[in-house]
Amino acid sequence: MRKIEHLGIAVKDLKKSNQLFEKLLGEKLYKEELVEGEGVKTSFFMVGDTKIELLEATREDSPIAKYLDKKSEGIHHIAFDVENIEKEVERLKKEGFEILNEIPKKGADNKLVVFLHPRSTNGVLIELCQEINQKL
Amino acid sequence: MRKIEHLGIAVKDLKKSNQLFEKLLGEKLYKEELVEGEGVKTSFFMVGDTKIELLEATREDSPIAKYLDKKSEGIHHIAFDVENIEKEVERLKKEGFEILNEIPKKGADNKLVVFLHPRSTNGVLIELCQEINQKL
Repeated sequence: MRKIEHLGIAVKDLKKSNQLFEKLLGEKLYKEELVEGEGVKTSFFMVGDTKIELLEATREDSPIAKYLDKKSEGIHHIAFDVENIEKEVERLKKEGFEILNEIPKKGADNKLVVFLHPRSTNGVLIELCQEINQKL
Repeated sequence: MRKIEHLGIAVKDLKKSNQLFEKLLGEKLYKEELVEGEGVKTSFFMVGDTKIELLEATREDSPIAKYLDKKSEGIHHIAFDVENIEKEVERLKKEGFEILNEIPKKGADNKLVVFLHPRSTNGVLIELCQEINQKL
């Protein structure tokens, strides 16, 4: 784990939350992105060398819609930047962590991503992510 | 907000969670600290230039005990490093955020800290923190 790449925050209304986070952080979001595969619309803010990603569901079967149904708005996941996602998955599997998708999938922001189940990580949904162009 | 100074994670059993996070992050915690005023025992891990702080309650009226009663283990707060905590509190008050303690108090890790109520920040408990020796 090289650093915290971003924090994901589940929100009900991205437009309203964008305004709120612009006020809170004192700066504007730098991009918005639709991730069709996950059913989410995202926006990104830079704070130091870490990002804050706001996530709004775009459909009912989106993991964010399910999260908001069960819980409420708030911090959804911590994403760690890793150098080699396959190696890191192997290491964590051996350590007994529960991997949600062993085959990395395409996430937002040009990343390959793997999630660990919160029940194996103290209730924290963990994302591992690796820049896609690093692999080429 | 200059950077994410740390992420606070509420845990039931600090010793067990320390072991879990050592496995997850692939490195050892670098310090433990008791914060009497808050009724918490904490441990710290470094990831890049951000810290992860695990928090265990030391008594029943600790904010962490109350959090675990109402919710469950998981991410408790995001702490942002600020240059001038009084100025930042003024700015955020004007923006309509609800400040939990307007007078900064002594937190863990030699910091002055102020909390914002999650109901004004999309369900996220926000901590502002400033190194105490910066003030002298």
